[in-house]
Amino acid sequence: MSTDPKILAFDVFGTVVDWHGSIAAEATRLNLPVDANEFATAWRDGYKPAMARVRSGSLPWTKIDDLHRMILDDVLKAFNITSLSESQVHELNLIWHRLNPWLDTVEGLTRLKSKFTIVTLSNGNLGLLADMAKNAGLPWDLILSAEVFRHYKPDPEAYLGVAETFDVRPEQVMLVAAHKDDLVAAKACGLQTAFIERPLEFGPNYARKDLHREEFTNYHAKDLNDLAAQLKCK
Amino acid sequence: MSTDPKILAFDVFGTVVDWHGSIAAEATRLNLPVDANEFATAWRDGYKPAMARVRSGSLPWTKIDDLHRMILDDVLKAFNITSLSESQVHELNLIWHRLNPWLDTVEGLTRLKSKFTIVTLSNGNLGLLADMAKNAGLPWDLILSAEVFRHYKPDPEAYLGVAETFDVRPEQVMLVAAHKDDLVAAKACGLQTAFIERPLEFGPNYARKDLHREEFTNYHAKDLNDLAAQLKCK
Repeated sequence: MSTDPKILAFDVFGTVVDWHGSIAAEATRLNLPVDANEFATAWRDGYKPAMARVRSGSLPWTKIDDLHRMILDDVLKAFNITSLSESQVHELNLIWHRLNPWLDTVEGLTRLKSKFTIVTLSNGNLGLLADMAKNAGLPWDLILSAEVFRHYKPDPEAYLGVAETFDVRPEQVMLVAAHKDDLVAAKACGLQTAFIERPLEFGPNYARKDLHREEFTNYHAKDLNDLAAQLKCK
Repeated sequence: MSTDPKILAFDVFGTVVDWHGSIAAEATRLNLPVDANEFATAWRDGYKPAMARVRSGSLPWTKIDDLHRMILDDVLKAFNITSLSESQVHELNLIWHRLNPWLDTVEGLTRLKSKFTIVTLSNGNLGLLADMAKNAGLPWDLILSAEVFRHYKPDPEAYLGVAETFDVRPEQVMLVAAHKDDLVAAKACGLQTAFIERPLEFGPNYARKDLHREEFTNYHAKDLNDLAAQLKCK
């Protein structure tokens, strides 16, 4: 039986906020001549390859804002969208600063905050995460980012950096995420793990088939309110 | 006439929280055989020299928590206090995580947050600042620290780091501080500046003589509520 963690570190994109729905809604609002769901999927599909280039050293350290923009330029070309001005593309890129939380997020985080220190551990840059928290009312105790550690997840430095920041042992930190690869990497560093089911993360046309409970997670929850209940928060 | 800033970056020790009163109260609570005001002053007096050693490179990068501990060990020796166990000294060192806000702080910050993005720019480490915010209810949009930039104030990298974090120009950031050397360094980097009078920062036995308005500040306020009023926050 593991002891209660002191620090809950949250993955953000997909776990806390609905990137797919928010981006598809923005594409619709802007009347982009695309299938909004395909556009959201294409933009996000560029994310892991871009980060892998930074992790391998083939790109120098680059903020997610700038990676998002590089990918967006490619996606706009691929969808043959030429109607946007430079300032409109810049503004569109900032949609990642205004992603909407899932319906349970603010209440769930607030409950968890009453008992634990709640922090982000996201590959998103600090400015993006701060804007998002202000816009969506996310009550973080501390915003931590790969930008602080200069290592993108799943590099161990990111997970261990949370423990070092609070001068606690790795097992006193629990990563909360909707992605199993993230949790596996955290567990390898000695963190506790909580999986959150987010069946609609990839939009209405994609049914996630990886929502089952795994042996490597300490907790498995439907959403953040469910996690708060399992952790005996009010 | 300068335009309104977008980001208000706050010095913390002395500007937002009352380090002297909090530490003196802790010395009294622990029945340390010292003059509580002298003890608080001695501990803080070690701060600038310790940071100067990091800034000059004679010490490698060291968190404030660890600098505070080095200074505390010296201060305990100087005051001939030998009654504390290792765990009691460790706990005493963490008083910096629990410093009390000034009476106007929470209301003033909340008002300023309604119109601006409010962040810390402190030499305190992230874990210290997060614990302090949670304990005192400080509603930061983002906690930034010298630890993020690996440069202690007044190194320019710390001030310019705030602008880079939010992808804004230096003049769109305003440093809010009770210390003129901090404001002078920020202004040299192109930031706007607001001075906050904190007559009791150094305790009841020390009258600050440097509270007058200066030409190099954009704003000069009695406290954070006064600054909120001058910046036309509700």
